[in-house]
Amino acid sequence: MKRNLYLNVQDKETALQNFLSAFEDISPKKEWIPVTESLGRITAEASYARYSSPSYNSCAMDGIAVISSHTKNASEDCPVLLAPEKDYLEVDTGDMIRPPYDAVIMAEDLIEAEGGFRIIAPTHPFAHVRAIGEDIVTQEMVLPSRHEIRAIDISVLISAGIHEIPVIKRPVVGIIPTGDEMIDYRETPEDGRIIETNSWMFQNLVTENHGVGRRYPIIKDDPVKIRSVVSDAVQDCDIVIINAGSSAGRDDYTVHAIRDLGEVLTHGVAIKPGKPVILGKVQGKPVIGLPGYPVSAYLTFVEFVVPVMHLFIQQNARPPKRVPAKLSKTLMSGLKYEEYVRVKLGIVEGELIASPLERGAGASMSLVRADGFCVIPQNREGIAAHETVSVELVRDMEQIGKTLVLIGSHDLILDVINDRMMEETKDMCLSSTHVGSLSGLIALKKKEAHLAPTHLLDEKDGSYNRTITREMFPDEKMVIIKGVRRRQGWIVKPGNPLSIGNISDITPEVRYINRQRGAGTRVLFDYLLKKEGIPTKNIRGYEHEAATHMSVAVAVQKDNADVGMGIYSCARALGLDFIDVTFEEYDFVTYASYLELPFVQEFLKILRSDAFKAKLEALGGYSCEKTGNLIYL
Amino acid sequence: MKRNLYLNVQDKETALQNFLSAFEDISPKKEWIPVTESLGRITAEASYARYSSPSYNSCAMDGIAVISSHTKNASEDCPVLLAPEKDYLEVDTGDMIRPPYDAVIMAEDLIEAEGGFRIIAPTHPFAHVRAIGEDIVTQEMVLPSRHEIRAIDISVLISAGIHEIPVIKRPVVGIIPTGDEMIDYRETPEDGRIIETNSWMFQNLVTENHGVGRRYPIIKDDPVKIRSVVSDAVQDCDIVIINAGSSAGRDDYTVHAIRDLGEVLTHGVAIKPGKPVILGKVQGKPVIGLPGYPVSAYLTFVEFVVPVMHLFIQQNARPPKRVPAKLSKTLMSGLKYEEYVRVKLGIVEGELIASPLERGAGASMSLVRADGFCVIPQNREGIAAHETVSVELVRDMEQIGKTLVLIGSHDLILDVINDRMMEETKDMCLSSTHVGSLSGLIALKKKEAHLAPTHLLDEKDGSYNRTITREMFPDEKMVIIKGVRRRQGWIVKPGNPLSIGNISDITPEVRYINRQRGAGTRVLFDYLLKKEGIPTKNIRGYEHEAATHMSVAVAVQKDNADVGMGIYSCARALGLDFIDVTFEEYDFVTYASYLELPFVQEFLKILRSDAFKAKLEALGGYSCEKTGNLIYL
Repeated sequence: MKRNLYLNVQDKETALQNFLSAFEDISPKKEWIPVTESLGRITAEASYARYSSPSYNSCAMDGIAVISSHTKNASEDCPVLLAPEKDYLEVDTGDMIRPPYDAVIMAEDLIEAEGGFRIIAPTHPFAHVRAIGEDIVTQEMVLPSRHEIRAIDISVLISAGIHEIPVIKRPVVGIIPTGDEMIDYRETPEDGRIIETNSWMFQNLVTENHGVGRRYPIIKDDPVKIRSVVSDAVQDCDIVIINAGSSAGRDDYTVHAIRDLGEVLTHGVAIKPGKPVILGKVQGKPVIGLPGYPVSAYLTFVEFVVPVMHLFIQQNARPPKRVPAKLSKTLMSGLKYEEYVRVKLGIVEGELIASPLERGAGASMSLVRADGFCVIPQNREGIAAHETVSVELVRDMEQIGKTLVLIGSHDLILDVINDRMMEETKDMCLSSTHVGSLSGLIALKKKEAHLAPTHLLDEKDGSYNRTITREMFPDEKMVIIKGVRRRQGWIVKPGNPLSIGNISDITPEVRYINRQRGAGTRVLFDYLLKKEGIPTKNIRGYEHEAATHMSVAVAVQKDNADVGMGIYSCARALGLDFIDVTFEEYDFVTYASYLELPFVQEFLKILRSDAFKAKLEALGGYSCEKTGNLIYL
Repeated sequence: MKRNLYLNVQDKETALQNFLSAFEDISPKKEWIPVTESLGRITAEASYARYSSPSYNSCAMDGIAVISSHTKNASEDCPVLLAPEKDYLEVDTGDMIRPPYDAVIMAEDLIEAEGGFRIIAPTHPFAHVRAIGEDIVTQEMVLPSRHEIRAIDISVLISAGIHEIPVIKRPVVGIIPTGDEMIDYRETPEDGRIIETNSWMFQNLVTENHGVGRRYPIIKDDPVKIRSVVSDAVQDCDIVIINAGSSAGRDDYTVHAIRDLGEVLTHGVAIKPGKPVILGKVQGKPVIGLPGYPVSAYLTFVEFVVPVMHLFIQQNARPPKRVPAKLSKTLMSGLKYEEYVRVKLGIVEGELIASPLERGAGASMSLVRADGFCVIPQNREGIAAHETVSVELVRDMEQIGKTLVLIGSHDLILDVINDRMMEETKDMCLSSTHVGSLSGLIALKKKEAHLAPTHLLDEKDGSYNRTITREMFPDEKMVIIKGVRRRQGWIVKPGNPLSIGNISDITPEVRYINRQRGAGTRVLFDYLLKKEGIPTKNIRGYEHEAATHMSVAVAVQKDNADVGMGIYSCARALGLDFIDVTFEEYDFVTYASYLELPFVQEFLKILRSDAFKAKLEALGGYSCEKTGNLIYL
């Protein structure tokens, strides 16, 4: 088994500083472009006015142009009559004032009279006249170097007679996707094929960072081809990215290609995700091997490609905005890496709460959902729940302040409510973290969530959610916002080939997929096992946990399991069969005082709307007689 | 004289609310675009995954795929030997895991042995396997409505098999420039002609605000033509802007065009600059007449066009960011208007200082230079110096914190230093306000500036700047940063046609252009007059004031005056003649403690650099033997 070895796993700062210092001699390139197309570009040099503006003495008001010396005796007691031509000309704003006229009197200050106008006050030279160069003087510096051009700058440059302007050339970033298993997104993915998506992310990240992305076709894992394309790209681009093959697997040729063509400065950096990054230099240009997992690819782009792009753009990188936040759950981490954990943020009772998202390097949806990154330093083994951490923001604090935070049980309707909320309010949204009902109530207790979606049965009286809420919040005024009744049962393949009817049909031959500890569905399954006296070791796949109903359904659909417990709407969404076990009440627990919050108000409005009920109808498996009712406890 | 009357000068809020409520029925338009081109667009609907990702069980690590049940007896005491094919397959990250293999062991955990690998710990099903749908489950909502699409979203959409996406259509804003005197910027402006620049500002403001600008050719002040083009534009665009002709002059036909085609909701709003705005509705679409002065045009665009664009974009307008700042100078204002005054901002000793810029509606350079707007409410006659005002920011506070604030005398070298500073540091800049030497020292005294550029002569000993600094700052440790010696004298037309040699040649026939009170140059001129016993009334144009040396020079160049006093470099820049009067020392006064500030350090570095001295050489009229020296007082 021939595998590459990481040459030197460096800490991030050292790796980055070494890398940047290898390109200290990079100087910005300049290009001349039309001023009319310069929005957002950075000036490479100062621009000097060719024309003055105004370019002639111009009338600043609608009125009459006068000879100021003819007005000097005017007063209220002794008005002066001005005669047309001899004493004045009618003028409008912008008209040229020519000698002998040297001042303007506003229309509002004129008294119409026979043979002209009367005035009751004198004027002075250049009154209400915009003198030549009053705004811009020829040869004056209009914009300095390194100025980001805005709409207003463009019109001023044009007034000053500047039609072309030297700006910093945007760096061209070559993006080379590699991998035998990779296919273009327009092809249909067969088993074992992966849709190549990172190059599109890079292309757009390059655009967002003021560069020009140039995507190359996907290259197979062939060292000769890779080397040849990299060699070409180095000719045509300012920076080259190779993705992936940056790791130490048998088919990872990126490091060899860079070493053959130039120099590998670093292979392996102590960050997670993102370790297998390669920082190299070929013919004086930065060549970077980025790892293939989407989260690793994103992070290493931000940490290494963006800073090197800034060398070309000649702007200082803006440090990421960091805010302190209270962590909602303990995060363990290895001492070997600095780890970046994606978090959702929300403000509960004035405190910013960070809820960790999926940590896998492949969890690209966690990047979509993230509000920021919590960085666990290399020298720490983890961070305890409720500790204050520093979060690098990827979303505005203003938006985060408009986020309704739900922690608890999962249901498809949460996405629907979020969608409705975004559409109705345009700026409020819902953030939901799926930890199961019980953990949700604990989060609510700790004031880390606004609402806890819960479906917990009281076995004694068959009621849902009331008993546990009373127990956990004995002294607080609580409210249960009624959500939906939903069908909970066995999700099986179409036609129910194993004839699952009840829990005793889940024999040791049947592959089960379970839910995580604390999930209401897991509680229900464990209750059923106990009732029937079935030991958990008899359940094949009891340890095989999925985090959501949809993950259970897809495992059954794709034959990773034969049966799992979940809600009807998920079985239906994937065209699977469903056997009812129970109806359960999926509600939202909150403090009575939180009902006042504007996003909770909006949430209630949506729950009670006909549009929402129509959506439930379409999903199937829900009933909503009480949806939006309030039960005060 | 036939002029329009303003129908109703409304306060801004009323006018805006009436205007927006006339378009309450506007609903966003949707268009389908390729996901790969969707960066920055706003989703019109939620998007649901077509594919799961991963779409098959895939290997999460480089290593071997195993049958987990074959590993269950492995321990450190009793390692298990795994044989190729029978027990394992070598796999790399991303490879498909097919039955009977159901788990992966990392390469790092393998011990090479004869006939295969030894392992010392069991594994379990799906260990190091990315299960189908682990990241994205088919039918899952990937993005909700009203989400601004980022690079990371694009790659996730592609993974989920989404190739086209419904987004909110950008509103098309028709921009119609009008005016007999207006010419295209590519033409050479003759006297009486104005380069039409506002349409380019609007075009780019529309882009900045997520719309699509459509510029129409310049139309003459012809009511029939204007009406016809507006009528066409209303067909083709979502919003129409007419610029200008919105006032009440004889050639202002905009209001008639809108009234003929539809309805004028408001003509005249109580804001300054910007009063003559017209808010109208034609065939259900917003049609807006904007005033012609660049500052008025900019402000009314921001106040009225941007909010109406948001109706189409379906995003809430972000309220402007406001910060409290200390006003450096008293601002008077009329009770008739809410007035927007452009200000420069800087932080001096932790306090944010707002220095008002040129207030004229035509002063477009003041928009280029502005860091924000100080709004004087309609019910106030002004705001006193040192009062705290609220400033709407147009530049980041972070950038503002890196601004070196100079208040005092003007010289061309300030622009040069700013340019060098931007180029060298990329994010520090210099803000200079030209109020004359004495006012600059007063600002320094009040801690409203970091440096005061000064050239004040002590008539007794012929020294510059020391005496006044000692007098004004008797108890503080001060430093004079030596600037330049510069030639000060008479700026006259080429060939000196009036043979100006000294002050007695400025006879009452000669048109003089003066500088504003407090300017060092004015002080010098007054001193010369006094010395020669010449009364100011004998100076024709004594009241005709210009704010900078360059303004004096351009007045002479363009024959607004015959002579003015100023520095050599300005005369030379405009090809004028120059007669020496004196050499003066132009220095920078500051507190000794301010020398520590990073931007003052940078300022000193630039003053002392060869590059700066070369620039002075090129400007001419400066000598710099002591430039950058420090004199502690």
